[in-house]
Amino acid sequence: MKPARSLIPIGTATFGPDTARHVRTLESQLITRLSRWGYREIILPTFEYLDVLSVGLAPEVLEKCYKFADWTTGRILVLRPDITAQIARIVAMGMGGAGLPLRLSYRTTVFRYEAEHAGREREIFQVGIELIGMDDPNADAEVLMSLIELLKAVGLPDFKVSLGHVGFYHALLTRSGLSEAGQRKAESAASHKDLPALEAILSEERLPRKKTKVIIEAAGRCGQDDVLEWGRAVAGKDVALTRPLDRLEKVYHLLDLAGLKDHLLLDLGESRGFDYYDGVVFDVFTSSMGSELGGGGRYNHLLGRFGRDLPSTGFALDMDRVFASLDPAVLHAGAQGVPILLLAPLKQFGAACKLAQRLRTEGLPVIQEAVVVGKSALIDHARERTKKMGAVTAIIFGAPKVPAQSAILMKCTPQQKEPRLSTVECHELPHILNGPPHVSV
Amino acid sequence: MKPARSLIPIGTATFGPDTARHVRTLESQLITRLSRWGYREIILPTFEYLDVLSVGLAPEVLEKCYKFADWTTGRILVLRPDITAQIARIVAMGMGGAGLPLRLSYRTTVFRYEAEHAGREREIFQVGIELIGMDDPNADAEVLMSLIELLKAVGLPDFKVSLGHVGFYHALLTRSGLSEAGQRKAESAASHKDLPALEAILSEERLPRKKTKVIIEAAGRCGQDDVLEWGRAVAGKDVALTRPLDRLEKVYHLLDLAGLKDHLLLDLGESRGFDYYDGVVFDVFTSSMGSELGGGGRYNHLLGRFGRDLPSTGFALDMDRVFASLDPAVLHAGAQGVPILLLAPLKQFGAACKLAQRLRTEGLPVIQEAVVVGKSALIDHARERTKKMGAVTAIIFGAPKVPAQSAILMKCTPQQKEPRLSTVECHELPHILNGPPHVSV
Repeated sequence: MKPARSLIPIGTATFGPDTARHVRTLESQLITRLSRWGYREIILPTFEYLDVLSVGLAPEVLEKCYKFADWTTGRILVLRPDITAQIARIVAMGMGGAGLPLRLSYRTTVFRYEAEHAGREREIFQVGIELIGMDDPNADAEVLMSLIELLKAVGLPDFKVSLGHVGFYHALLTRSGLSEAGQRKAESAASHKDLPALEAILSEERLPRKKTKVIIEAAGRCGQDDVLEWGRAVAGKDVALTRPLDRLEKVYHLLDLAGLKDHLLLDLGESRGFDYYDGVVFDVFTSSMGSELGGGGRYNHLLGRFGRDLPSTGFALDMDRVFASLDPAVLHAGAQGVPILLLAPLKQFGAACKLAQRLRTEGLPVIQEAVVVGKSALIDHARERTKKMGAVTAIIFGAPKVPAQSAILMKCTPQQKEPRLSTVECHELPHILNGPPHVSV
Repeated sequence: MKPARSLIPIGTATFGPDTARHVRTLESQLITRLSRWGYREIILPTFEYLDVLSVGLAPEVLEKCYKFADWTTGRILVLRPDITAQIARIVAMGMGGAGLPLRLSYRTTVFRYEAEHAGREREIFQVGIELIGMDDPNADAEVLMSLIELLKAVGLPDFKVSLGHVGFYHALLTRSGLSEAGQRKAESAASHKDLPALEAILSEERLPRKKTKVIIEAAGRCGQDDVLEWGRAVAGKDVALTRPLDRLEKVYHLLDLAGLKDHLLLDLGESRGFDYYDGVVFDVFTSSMGSELGGGGRYNHLLGRFGRDLPSTGFALDMDRVFASLDPAVLHAGAQGVPILLLAPLKQFGAACKLAQRLRTEGLPVIQEAVVVGKSALIDHARERTKKMGAVTAIIFGAPKVPAQSAILMKCTPQQKEPRLSTVECHELPHILNGPPHVSV
């Protein structure tokens, strides 16, 4: 027998109603909060021309893209693997005109082949920002402050932002005498905190013991002010090393003044995975998740690749990982209520419509049905429909002996076998129903 | 000289901040309103396996799909061209379990090659619902009622829903004696209201004059009760014609009772473009837009193609077209305010952070910067930054002669060359600033 083929592409997302609701709420909270920092959302196309976008993508990202031919032009299209490159392309092409800096936010998905990952790793939900056209510690600090405030606000427990400057480690490797290939490999090993691999690379090129020690220590060390002190001692008067330290220290100081130091870990081996970063960079971690929840940093030369040189910085959050790190209790607060069932014979269908509309305006979910059974069978019918729908509350128009402008309110509880029935005036219903457990959206 | 190549794939979407804000607000309004009708949002993968999804797609849709190879499996992936088929696939595979009916909503994009269209026609934003597992006039009416209430609520001016039943026209063509190919062509011509083409098809097959007349009249006629009367006269006692008319009449009657008749136009030639519709169907039109803004209908046999036969109905709205049909004045209400600039020397950066956070909590957008200029140059610096940023309001900490816990409030107006300066206590600022023109998000 042939093995069954998967019906859904591996690593893609299907969110059922509960998860979808939480994801959308979280996305929208983040975007709203970012708007209070002056960031305005934009919406980007899902695919781009490969020849256009590829100038902004690192070779290892390019390899992981989904590509396909455009019938009408014969050119190759690519599902966006990265938002930063796409925004750089759009801004370099003239978006925003002369009005700088630009503060942009987004909520969207990116697409990458990640053969080795389990789970939802091919269509990744992201929320993030870009601050374009500013190159000073204020801009670096702003992006970090907004990130940290955001994560605090959504209740992410126990997170740390590891903060570094790609220039430091880069200069350390450059002055070490390593080959170019060795430098690249060492940078990659350091960014993954793979110290044994790093050691092997350095020993392969027979680097002197003292240099090896510093390069490994820089990659392994993380802390707070002590890391800066250590960096100063290593840097001496080498401007290639002191300049990144100066910038990092200023940003760190601003975040300290903002009261956010507890969330920071300085890390001089930090370099991020994308080749366009060239300044202060950072990653977000929590104790419960092995991989980073997001990160970002400064990319002063990315826009230049698209023809308009503008210093920029930003961050992106991996929403799946943020979501997985949040306390389920926080997420489940404010779940959507079970709909109310509103039943009416044709004669009173119009009046029932008006009541349904009124209840919906109050935030209550209502499902309305016309019933064609006789008056005497109405309550039994209602009981059956309520049960079938899993509803808790039904409103029944047109039952025997009910005065005009009134209806029967049927309440089903798991405790009682028989539903509780009461006759109520219609205008009182919004008030009666608008409490728990019918939480509005 | 070679002609310049386009930098952006034709027919894809880039929304700048203003448009993105309106689109997101509209999407979220629609989804929230639909939740009051009991519809719960789901999120679906952007691509699917072609061999799995294709059983739910009409041949002409399949031709317009974006397809690409999956590296890891060698199978062909397809960017979803249609949400209904995708939801049918997911529900047939067991989503929702035994709990029927299912009421699902979505906001997303679909992808189709539309070579002949201008504008944003390859990545189409949609909001819609599916009501799965119910086959009665209540379900048909519910979907139509929610659609009409939704369009009224967002302020869509002057719209009509054309309402029909694919069974009527189908039966008319079947009993006419047309060839199968002729029937398909005639159905397509009728659905596009292309009466000359329809006439040519019928005359090519030498259909008797009387039959030709009825088939053309059915396609051309639209109205209200008169259309039903005409249909009854044509149908006589032919059950294949009276059964669709009975169902249509019941749904029409419910909508009439709900007070929505004015938005309806009955149309017995209505058949929609997708091959899966098999019951009551509808399209939304406005006087300002040549093509339909959305539509839907009953598809009782689509889920069966995926292995779980469940009667279903639903609608989808083309958000670009809805958006284009709305009054710009409605859209521009509630635009985001210009951010407030908050400047502080390092010494007061922490206090400024606290104020910024307080203002953001009140819904005000704030951009904060540390300044390193001397006290005496502070106001000039603030003036320059405010001008450069296009801000209207600045708050300045640490200026000379300002008491502790106070700051300078700088207001720039187009009327006055010099900004207005006043000293205010910090705790009063949220109150002072939280009026127009700083509209909260």
